[in-house]
Amino acid sequence: MKKKNTRQLGMIGLGRMGGAMVRRLLKDGHRCVVFDRSPKAVQALTKFKATGASSLADLVNKLQRPRAIWLMVPAAVVDATIADLTPLLDPGDILLDGGNSYYVDDLRRAKELAQQGLHYVDVGTSGGVWGGDRGYCQMIGGEAAIVKHLDPIFASLAPGRGDIPRTAGRKKPGNTAEQGYLHCGPNGAGHFVKMVHNGIEYGMMAAYAEGLAVLRAANVGHQTMKVSAETTPLRHPANYQFDLPLDDIAEVWRRGSVIASWLLDLTANALAADTHLTQFEGRVSDSGEGRWTVKAAIDEGVPVPVLSAALYARFSSRGQADYQDKILSALRFQFGGHAEEPIH
Amino acid sequence: MKKKNTRQLGMIGLGRMGGAMVRRLLKDGHRCVVFDRSPKAVQALTKFKATGASSLADLVNKLQRPRAIWLMVPAAVVDATIADLTPLLDPGDILLDGGNSYYVDDLRRAKELAQQGLHYVDVGTSGGVWGGDRGYCQMIGGEAAIVKHLDPIFASLAPGRGDIPRTAGRKKPGNTAEQGYLHCGPNGAGHFVKMVHNGIEYGMMAAYAEGLAVLRAANVGHQTMKVSAETTPLRHPANYQFDLPLDDIAEVWRRGSVIASWLLDLTANALAADTHLTQFEGRVSDSGEGRWTVKAAIDEGVPVPVLSAALYARFSSRGQADYQDKILSALRFQFGGHAEEPIH
Amino acid sequence: MKKKNTRQLGMIGLGRMGGAMVRRLLKDGHRCVVFDRSPKAVQALTKFKATGASSLADLVNKLQRPRAIWLMVPAAVVDATIADLTPLLDPGDILLDGGNSYYVDDLRRAKELAQQGLHYVDVGTSGGVWGGDRGYCQMIGGEAAIVKHLDPIFASLAPGRGDIPRTAGRKKPGNTAEQGYLHCGPNGAGHFVKMVHNGIEYGMMAAYAEGLAVLRAANVGHQTMKVSAETTPLRHPANYQFDLPLDDIAEVWRRGSVIASWLLDLTANALAADTHLTQFEGRVSDSGEGRWTVKAAIDEGVPVPVLSAALYARFSSRGQADYQDKILSALRFQFGGHAEEPIH
Amino acid sequence: MKKKNTRQLGMIGLGRMGGAMVRRLLKDGHRCVVFDRSPKAVQALTKFKATGASSLADLVNKLQRPRAIWLMVPAAVVDATIADLTPLLDPGDILLDGGNSYYVDDLRRAKELAQQGLHYVDVGTSGGVWGGDRGYCQMIGGEAAIVKHLDPIFASLAPGRGDIPRTAGRKKPGNTAEQGYLHCGPNGAGHFVKMVHNGIEYGMMAAYAEGLAVLRAANVGHQTMKVSAETTPLRHPANYQFDLPLDDIAEVWRRGSVIASWLLDLTANALAADTHLTQFEGRVSDSGEGRWTVKAAIDEGVPVPVLSAALYARFSSRGQADYQDKILSALRFQFGGHAEEPIH
Repeated sequence: MKKKNTRQLGMIGLGRMGGAMVRRLLKDGHRCVVFDRSPKAVQALTKFKATGASSLADLVNKLQRPRAIWLMVPAAVVDATIADLTPLLDPGDILLDGGNSYYVDDLRRAKELAQQGLHYVDVGTSGGVWGGDRGYCQMIGGEAAIVKHLDPIFASLAPGRGDIPRTAGRKKPGNTAEQGYLHCGPNGAGHFVKMVHNGIEYGMMAAYAEGLAVLRAANVGHQTMKVSAETTPLRHPANYQFDLPLDDIAEVWRRGSVIASWLLDLTANALAADTHLTQFEGRVSDSGEGRWTVKAAIDEGVPVPVLSAALYARFSSRGQADYQDKILSALRFQFGGHAEEPIH
Repeated sequence: MKKKNTRQLGMIGLGRMGGAMVRRLLKDGHRCVVFDRSPKAVQALTKFKATGASSLADLVNKLQRPRAIWLMVPAAVVDATIADLTPLLDPGDILLDGGNSYYVDDLRRAKELAQQGLHYVDVGTSGGVWGGDRGYCQMIGGEAAIVKHLDPIFASLAPGRGDIPRTAGRKKPGNTAEQGYLHCGPNGAGHFVKMVHNGIEYGMMAAYAEGLAVLRAANVGHQTMKVSAETTPLRHPANYQFDLPLDDIAEVWRRGSVIASWLLDLTANALAADTHLTQFEGRVSDSGEGRWTVKAAIDEGVPVPVLSAALYARFSSRGQADYQDKILSALRFQFGGHAEEPIH
Repeated sequence: MKKKNTRQLGMIGLGRMGGAMVRRLLKDGHRCVVFDRSPKAVQALTKFKATGASSLADLVNKLQRPRAIWLMVPAAVVDATIADLTPLLDPGDILLDGGNSYYVDDLRRAKELAQQGLHYVDVGTSGGVWGGDRGYCQMIGGEAAIVKHLDPIFASLAPGRGDIPRTAGRKKPGNTAEQGYLHCGPNGAGHFVKMVHNGIEYGMMAAYAEGLAVLRAANVGHQTMKVSAETTPLRHPANYQFDLPLDDIAEVWRRGSVIASWLLDLTANALAADTHLTQFEGRVSDSGEGRWTVKAAIDEGVPVPVLSAALYARFSSRGQADYQDKILSALRFQFGGHAEEPIH
Repeated sequence: MKKKNTRQLGMIGLGRMGGAMVRRLLKDGHRCVVFDRSPKAVQALTKFKATGASSLADLVNKLQRPRAIWLMVPAAVVDATIADLTPLLDPGDILLDGGNSYYVDDLRRAKELAQQGLHYVDVGTSGGVWGGDRGYCQMIGGEAAIVKHLDPIFASLAPGRGDIPRTAGRKKPGNTAEQGYLHCGPNGAGHFVKMVHNGIEYGMMAAYAEGLAVLRAANVGHQTMKVSAETTPLRHPANYQFDLPLDDIAEVWRRGSVIASWLLDLTANALAADTHLTQFEGRVSDSGEGRWTVKAAIDEGVPVPVLSAALYARFSSRGQADYQDKILSALRFQFGGHAEEPIH
């Protein structure tokens, strides 16, 4: 068994992820000073032996130097938080950003903070609401010595090797990747890798979603189609007579199929609750990383048709293709006199 | 000036296109016997000196052998019309299908009709509601001698060379392509070429539509965005402050730009009427050729990402991505506890 | 512990998958009569107590009625094998197709075989070369009673529940999906579900591949770009200075990240061996299911941009976009006088 | 006939486009002072009555105040040229950038130049090597009074109304869009519109290219396919027996079809010369606007699947998908033991 050193860590932002991370750290013996705009969120963690702070200044005061402060706040307020925080810090202190920052901001921040003698570490963190139990996969960018110093923190947040088998032929025994955290490179590298991780996630989610939609519509041959110059009839309705059990199909794929994955496990969860997913409207948010991945790919000249298609599906799901659709209808009316058909 | 021979032609189906074709043929001195389910449509053309028919049998009786009968009916009823018609015909007679049939049906029909001594010609016809005045671009499949025999018909329906300049370096002086009609190959070739024509049309329409949508949203920087973990703020709102005149832009592109086209002319028409296109909902039909083009490409192993994307945009415009969008929302809820955001 | 009934099964086709399946069945006490065009393949299995057959007739003779014969041969020769086999069979016998048949063929075969009193079962089988050890995920189409009769076979081939946790909220206790096999519906349903499974697989593979390619090119800022009217320089080379360890990144993602999956495990295997993948040329085959999935989606009117993009990437990888690329270069030359640039 | 005022204009950059623009301006009575790094290019235009300049300083000296200087240089050297030029200029002078600058650079330049009392105009210019004869479609961004002052220049460069018919229902009689140039908005608007124009161009080119590739492969049924577990045989080879005349098809589409366009005219040119396009390799450059269009779309949240697909096809044509293709092959080898097949 790996013996862990302990560290003191300040945590700012005690939402879904920040709070769970603190509990996970406390369980491993680390000392945490915690702050959130909501005093209730702070209070909730003091029950688990975290030290509560009533302000940024209070948090800074309660930390020993060199301080290590982890920000777990929305990407949009990271800069403001850093601006509030830096006047309170001393040279040698360390800021970690564990949220979903754009890596280009990391490059800038690291440079600015370095001018004040402060260190910056960007930590792309995956695991979602399950990470508190399963551990968080961490992709880390920053100076080697600083990342090394914080190793006990990362190790406690990570899932550890668990019962996931070793990769065939893998050597690199000292490398922490097998524990679920990795120093990917200099500042920005952590969030760059996390950004692409999320880009891939979009693509995978879309692959499952499209496939399940094809399965669901496998009974379209049941429907009678009307004859019209606007639409082509289904040529072989006999080929589309399947009423397929989507929940069981997601379940069976979890067991020995090539497409088994954790996202599939979650899909099975969702479909076990309701195969019609009636509680959802289908307006899908995108939180930035998918966009940045495509933009990085374009800068690099790397084709990413799947990742883009997944991103655009989300845009369209929110009605953002409406104008272009109207243009298509307008053109069909112009050249063919085609009026729009009512939804059947 | 080219002196035209005249022919006698039967026309079945006097809708938007069939009626206009008959008038164009009559103007060039051809004799037309016409039939439609609607007696009014028949009557309307007798004013232009067409011979009206009260039934398929009447139409057949009023035509001299070898008869040439052009079908201009929805793809879905072509087979039924042929089945009604063939018992009335004599060996040597010719059936032409000028609609948007699937070329695979042409292959079958040509074979079946040949067994009865009948000839079949498939004519992909482009030009829409404007073809009556501009002429119809015709892509023809069938036996060489039969197509040759009907040349005066195709020539009259075609736009002719007009004032469109010759293609640089083009030789082949006897070839009719410069007149706007072409014998593409054996049966099926006409509709195959027309099918791909429409596939391309989908792609071009989508290219304009997407581009105009990007122009329209060039003012998104005006909007204030709320801070949220679900959405990323626009990084450089100052870069998106343009209120662009879409109607003028479509107009200026018609003049000397690389993307000038007839579809752009129609786009300019539509935007001149209303840049907001408020009369349209954005539910875009697809009438078969786009689907068949993609399927043919897949059979051939030819990648067609643009033609597919254009097709899928139409599916999505009709709400047919709703289920897969719900899966994405359900997954985001599963792994991140993300609820759907209301439409802003 | 589940006590298993045993069955007798004939297996035709002892390649990578067929041979491993027989060994897995023998281990569970089933009796197997095996045949392959290659006598060596037959002989290899007799060591494991399989009964070898020297011909189809011999195999049929060595099976008790009602016979159950599993075909594990390339999709292209299934029909020929069935044609050779059926004259030798008796009413009530069962043929299973465990390969990657097109489900439309299943519909036809089931109908034809039923006319001879024979039963047909289509079994989509996932698991690849690893299935011998891990078990095979099976998606089954056919008559309920017949599928029930063969349950012990399916159960032995399946992975069983193993240590994969139960899906949250899942009820349906009698359902076999949790064991890794599922009766999806009537004939064709098995291969339909397997077809879509593979379509999803294409999409997932492409998502990982694209993402890793973006990571790999994260160092393009190191390269100096030449000034040219043909290419735009990289605007912010400082943003692309990362030399990222792809093998470690694949490894860390296996541990607690949202995109962990079995395909990612295999990616980690491949990258552990060689991050440059120099033994591969990048000509990617596609074996049919990806194509059929897209065609089914088009018939259904379901948009599948991700699955299509993944398919087309494979077409392009084999040079099948070359002609269209030449057209683009020819057009650029026509309108702009642009010559192609040498590969930098 | 419209009587034109004349202006004096300095032109820097006398390449394919700059030189032709000067000749077009001289023909309309404008006075041009011209400079290029290549003295030969300068000399060539003095024959047409342009005033040659031997340096930037010489050019500035030969122009009357307020000077108007048009830059027609590669986007990558615009900033350097402006930096060299501004110390030589006086308040009130005007710089025009007629190249393919990124509109974000326009925003910055306009602000910087304004601080020195200089005006900036961004002119997106379309027409390619044909513009000298046909005229250039111009999309203009800048201050209204400055654009107005330069109107005679834009009018001479533009194609004018010519014989292109008016848009149905278009009002706005004073608007210059019908002459082929348009003041689109403030600085940046000109290049923004030109950027999207080129994005659309990519999409249209790809639509034609994909469609023609589908036509070209319409004879794949002639080929015999080998039986293999890696590839699926063509199910209906009889459906793919067409040897289609691509040059004639491009020609016929120019005449009355819905997809007639200037790009199609050029396609017909290219195919008239050689339907096999053997002089091209198929490595397609992209010069920036396609990339920027997609990035703008992503910032705006507008889905652009067609424009992206067209861009990625160019990336792939230059081998930039090779690594991701290798990953796919590596994965197929991992899970199925599939080796890559030689190109057939």
